[in-house]
Amino acid sequence: MTQSSPINRRFVLAKRPQGMPTGEDIVLKEEEIPQPGKGQMLLRTLYLSLDPYMRGRMDDAESYSAPLAIGDVMVGGTVCRVEKSEHPDYQQGDLVLAYTGWQDYALSDGEGLQKLDANMPHPSYALGLLGMPGFTGYMGLTDIGNPQKGETVVVAAASGAVGSVVGQVAKLRGARIVGIAGGEDKCRYVAETLKFDACIDHKAPDFAGQLKKACPQGIDVYFENVGGAVFDAVLPLLNTKARVPVCGVISQYNGQNSAFTEDRLPLLMGTILKKRLRVQGFIIFQDYGEHYPEFFKQMSQWLSEGKIQFREDIVDGLENVVEAFRGLLSGKNFGKLIVKVAE
Amino acid sequence: MTQSSPINRRFVLAKRPQGMPTGEDIVLKEEEIPQPGKGQMLLRTLYLSLDPYMRGRMDDAESYSAPLAIGDVMVGGTVCRVEKSEHPDYQQGDLVLAYTGWQDYALSDGEGLQKLDANMPHPSYALGLLGMPGFTGYMGLTDIGNPQKGETVVVAAASGAVGSVVGQVAKLRGARIVGIAGGEDKCRYVAETLKFDACIDHKAPDFAGQLKKACPQGIDVYFENVGGAVFDAVLPLLNTKARVPVCGVISQYNGQNSAFTEDRLPLLMGTILKKRLRVQGFIIFQDYGEHYPEFFKQMSQWLSEGKIQFREDIVDGLENVVEAFRGLLSGKNFGKLIVKVAE
Repeated sequence: MTQSSPINRRFVLAKRPQGMPTGEDIVLKEEEIPQPGKGQMLLRTLYLSLDPYMRGRMDDAESYSAPLAIGDVMVGGTVCRVEKSEHPDYQQGDLVLAYTGWQDYALSDGEGLQKLDANMPHPSYALGLLGMPGFTGYMGLTDIGNPQKGETVVVAAASGAVGSVVGQVAKLRGARIVGIAGGEDKCRYVAETLKFDACIDHKAPDFAGQLKKACPQGIDVYFENVGGAVFDAVLPLLNTKARVPVCGVISQYNGQNSAFTEDRLPLLMGTILKKRLRVQGFIIFQDYGEHYPEFFKQMSQWLSEGKIQFREDIVDGLENVVEAFRGLLSGKNFGKLIVKVAE
Repeated sequence: MTQSSPINRRFVLAKRPQGMPTGEDIVLKEEEIPQPGKGQMLLRTLYLSLDPYMRGRMDDAESYSAPLAIGDVMVGGTVCRVEKSEHPDYQQGDLVLAYTGWQDYALSDGEGLQKLDANMPHPSYALGLLGMPGFTGYMGLTDIGNPQKGETVVVAAASGAVGSVVGQVAKLRGARIVGIAGGEDKCRYVAETLKFDACIDHKAPDFAGQLKKACPQGIDVYFENVGGAVFDAVLPLLNTKARVPVCGVISQYNGQNSAFTEDRLPLLMGTILKKRLRVQGFIIFQDYGEHYPEFFKQMSQWLSEGKIQFREDIVDGLENVVEAFRGLLSGKNFGKLIVKVAE
């Protein structure tokens, strides 16, 4: 349900989750809608992006961003409409890309905002294909992965926001692309709609064997966004000089234990040496921020030419955000997960 | 003892070692000295290089080179003198860099040979500072590590052939350089003669604590040539965007077990992500062969200007090669290990 009452619903971190976050870790606080002062504006959230990295921010652990403090509003990228403006550069009705998190309203002084074309056909795409996830897939693949014609590229969560971009861009570059997804419906979508050369169901009992069969020439680029059992199956298939851009290890975020009882760190380091692998982590805006305009232009063009497909999974109503986020962490979403907060 | 009898002593792989190789794994075979046919020449080994990678070649495991077969002569880089020549491009007395392995004599048709200046002051340097180890240290550091002024670089086996080059080149680039070596004598040499900013003894009981203290700004480049406990101490100290060129994991070559009972592969992948590390293996001549002339010129110049120190550990007599190799694998050598086979 979208909402239009004069209350600002805010979802805040109440305590640090053990494993999968629950409604006790993230709780709803209702407050009055704040009023903008001089130089400020009031933003109304229209769309909120839900992404795996948010789970990491909930832990009290050193990471690439400071952890959320207890009581903080959950963070997240948003598409907002300017509701009231006391800011000289913004007018009521402007559409902006913001980072106001899991709430209905927020004040802004304009810092970090990006104006969007108020008439853009899919404003929520600014949170997916044309935003952080699409940019992540595009840059990690092209800069670190750098697939060549005929090489084999593997990506997991292939029907998702990042994976679907990785695969389609690799395909446009002439690579052979093998996706991994959870369940028959997603695999069919990846193979038929996204036109991957193959898609393997990671829930299949002989997953590792099927992956090997789908990669008869080995793997040249593995775009790592899940970790865990998928990485375990990929590791022995990597070719000499393979590249592994690492943008996420979602399977580890909730602290699941490894299926192995021996220490495989030496195995990984030995494999990196023997196969001369390049394994490299990256965080999209910190590492590649200056490339955003060129990405935006290229991706918008491919989109308008029909060369890129993008699927969204839109959940209606901010009140459903916790359940939607839990679903994301267990792979229940099918496409880029977006919460529609208001019309 | 050097040798001048008309017998060709050859050390061959008799069986695959379990852990540290012994005199039962590598055995001496005596044969007649072969005679060169048309287009061939007879090479007399003067110096044989002993290097950690040789241990990997003894295993029957997929690696960056094919494994040695049982009965094969142990491989290795050599400096040889042309003893007899039926080859139009070579004359008796020529000095060449070859790859004839652990034996007194070998035939060659010239393939893969590199002529050396017959009057070069230190012919054995072609196996160390100016050869594969020096080239490995130089390229891994400059291309993958790429240290910037003021950054902290850490390298283990710091008194050795690769480590001493890594540190001194990093220093020439304005980095702060912390070495790791085994024992007081080596550490003193690294700090005083090689002029590293600090050197930590990995045999010290509080090694990890000392390393942390020596790197108050964290670690920006860790040149990985040992693996094991040193890597374990380095991992938590790596800075965001640190680079880890991987050229060897000597501590793993003999199959020692990890000190850890849990699987730390997820920890490593998680750290690569969170710290946006670049971890990259390389094999020097396959990956960087075309850069050899520029390296040779640069290093020769530094050497003549007194900007680079290089220490050799010369063992006299091919009959001592197995013991010398075992010492190398347990860190007993002090400087680049070379076997002097003949005058």
